[in-house]
Amino acid sequence: MLEPLEPLIRALARLPGIGRRTAERIALRLVRDRSRSLAHELRRALEELDDAIRLCRRCGAVTSAAEDPCRLCTDPHRESGVLCVVEDPADIEQVEKSGGFRGRYFALMGKLSPMRGESVVNPRFEELCRRVAEERIGEVVLALNTDMESDATAAYLRDRLAPAGARVTRIAVGLPAGSGIAYSDPVTLAAALQGRRPL
Amino acid sequence: MLEPLEPLIRALARLPGIGRRTAERIALRLVRDRSRSLAHELRRALEELDDAIRLCRRCGAVTSAAEDPCRLCTDPHRESGVLCVVEDPADIEQVEKSGGFRGRYFALMGKLSPMRGESVVNPRFEELCRRVAEERIGEVVLALNTDMESDATAAYLRDRLAPAGARVTRIAVGLPAGSGIAYSDPVTLAAALQGRRPL
Repeated sequence: MLEPLEPLIRALARLPGIGRRTAERIALRLVRDRSRSLAHELRRALEELDDAIRLCRRCGAVTSAAEDPCRLCTDPHRESGVLCVVEDPADIEQVEKSGGFRGRYFALMGKLSPMRGESVVNPRFEELCRRVAEERIGEVVLALNTDMESDATAAYLRDRLAPAGARVTRIAVGLPAGSGIAYSDPVTLAAALQGRRPL
Repeated sequence: MLEPLEPLIRALARLPGIGRRTAERIALRLVRDRSRSLAHELRRALEELDDAIRLCRRCGAVTSAAEDPCRLCTDPHRESGVLCVVEDPADIEQVEKSGGFRGRYFALMGKLSPMRGESVVNPRFEELCRRVAEERIGEVVLALNTDMESDATAAYLRDRLAPAGARVTRIAVGLPAGSGIAYSDPVTLAAALQGRRPL
């Protein structure tokens, strides 16, 4: 009986975090809503996405078509000599929320995947190297994740950015704030020990 | 930074089973996809929903605009004297999959909510009574859920349908197939005991 809804269910199930069952539930909810207000709101938002929303051409943050480069790239009060490199546009949001960074950003839109034997390198990596050299960036802060692929990406970028003369740093791995040693996993704790700093 | 995506995030978060975080992830995924193929597929499916998909005007099952009443209502090989009453169009799908029913369907599109003190009764209830009387239905099988509101709905329908002379039955509550007494909850087990049948 759900055959007529198949195209919608399939489209929904392609979204991250949505399985087949949830997609079915959503599709049924949309078709049951006689006013179709939910479906219309979603359509309008998707049209707007197409017309008015962009990833900033400089840093990759989410921005409107009217503000490209984005506010983070054009704000004169931000330090232009420090560049925070993240994997994903959403990570820019997280770093901003932390309040711990006041420089510029650069989203890689991915990372190296040595496990998948990829030798093809993300063109954003080239763009990063060009930008660091051209803008005479003093420090590149790698705010990457802490998995193996991110580690490989960090090592690769450190080597690639060396000729440009920028200092390359990486954010600390350690115990989460408000947490305790009793609850830490051994890998995190070992990293926190290794990253100890003088008081 | 996610402000431009707010309308899309809000629309997504209104869907069942999708929280704010998942909505953000989906919105970012859609905006990161440069070809926008995912967003376009979803838009097309939503347009089709609007143009071509209906709930059957007789039983409420999902159907195409070209088949209304739906195949279940028009199939001459199905018994027309037995009517299975469900709460939701999706439940019709489930009952069909079970292979345990070969009559007609009727989806209530809801149930009584005595806890919310609702005295307003679903207009579908009136439609059901009319249909049972007009089509001289011999048996109404209530395939409702097993919560309190469904129980109230079953009791209400039993009383309302009495004048029409139809037998009103309700599907059994009991242990799930393949499960054991050790894993049953007391309420289910009590209901299974009460519903015991001669062998």
